[in-house]
Amino acid sequence: MRLLEDKIREHGNILSDKVLKVDSFLNHQVDTELALQIGQQFYRIFRHQPITKVLTIEASGIQFAMATAMAFNVPFVYAKKKKAVTLQESVYTAAVHSFTKQETYQVCVSQAYLGPEDRVLIVDDFLATGAALIGLVDIVKEAGAALVGVGCVIEKCFQEGRELLEQKGVDVHSLAKISSMAPGSIQFVPGDDEIMLGKESDDDAK
Amino acid sequence: MRLLEDKIREHGNILSDKVLKVDSFLNHQVDTELALQIGQQFYRIFRHQPITKVLTIEASGIQFAMATAMAFNVPFVYAKKKKAVTLQESVYTAAVHSFTKQETYQVCVSQAYLGPEDRVLIVDDFLATGAALIGLVDIVKEAGAALVGVGCVIEKCFQEGRELLEQKGVDVHSLAKISSMAPGSIQFVPGDDEIMLGKESDDDAK
Repeated sequence: MRLLEDKIREHGNILSDKVLKVDSFLNHQVDTELALQIGQQFYRIFRHQPITKVLTIEASGIQFAMATAMAFNVPFVYAKKKKAVTLQESVYTAAVHSFTKQETYQVCVSQAYLGPEDRVLIVDDFLATGAALIGLVDIVKEAGAALVGVGCVIEKCFQEGRELLEQKGVDVHSLAKISSMAPGSIQFVPGDDEIMLGKESDDDAK
Repeated sequence: MRLLEDKIREHGNILSDKVLKVDSFLNHQVDTELALQIGQQFYRIFRHQPITKVLTIEASGIQFAMATAMAFNVPFVYAKKKKAVTLQESVYTAAVHSFTKQETYQVCVSQAYLGPEDRVLIVDDFLATGAALIGLVDIVKEAGAALVGVGCVIEKCFQEGRELLEQKGVDVHSLAKISSMAPGSIQFVPGDDEIMLGKESDDDAK
């Protein structure tokens, strides 16, 4: 997604060969218009399949889940990172290790909001180690729902997340795929989604 | 906001005279269309004042901040609940005590995203003790920004939050004001916002 890559080049802050900060426009301050376009891009990619729910994980997936759910006109669900006092009923859970924060936490989704009747699209801001996304995939499986695919805003292709997801048979699409980076330089894998979608972008633009 | 009150009556789960669960449509599973209408209602209430940024706190304020920021066509910022590894630059912070989770945490906003040039509308899902909102108000003040007001989706009028905010001179608007509740019954304060806005709702609907 060209617009997104341009924004990353211009406003992303590369702290090391593994850490990219995009909190001026994606996950602390949010460029609302860009978030909406990201949701519409996920819609273009996955629109040929019926989707009943978008699933993400708090907090930084929420704006993209909302934009995607708007495009599909379905509700979204965000997994919570630990069991809150007011989340009392039965929940699906998965353990996730955060390499950024160096801690393991539980993600949970109320069983009331995912079930065998659902066809789920998972979205999140980053695909790197894949840990959080694999937790969500496990929750979809536990719910007996059908997983349509995973949409990520930014993928760090030099980490193992995609491979781990594809080993589970998951259809993964990312809008900006970083092949390598270092302070002052960043390379993207040419976006096959964009090439694939370019021809029909006019009549399919929502 | 009638639509919201109806939804709370129909789908809210009142666990006690203080705890209302709305996680089937507001803050776990999210009714995207309702969230958008909530954003548009905040726009109607605050539209006469220039606003440069919407501010909320992760995670459950994000969907309403996004909907409100969309209506105003501005970015939004969500305060983070603790200092993450990738949030390295200078931050504004405030300590907040969560009565639901019985813990005190830091909320922080990068100094890069709020400054004296900003006119800020704060939004959140609940106004009860006011603790989180007062933390956000303090952060806006610390940034030297102008606070336009606070918009809450649901207010528990029998708790002290509004009084504490108004003592600080804050203009507070809530879309559903609960005067009392108990399992099986809930009473709302008649919505003055709705009465005030009813006459112009047609031409102002976005």
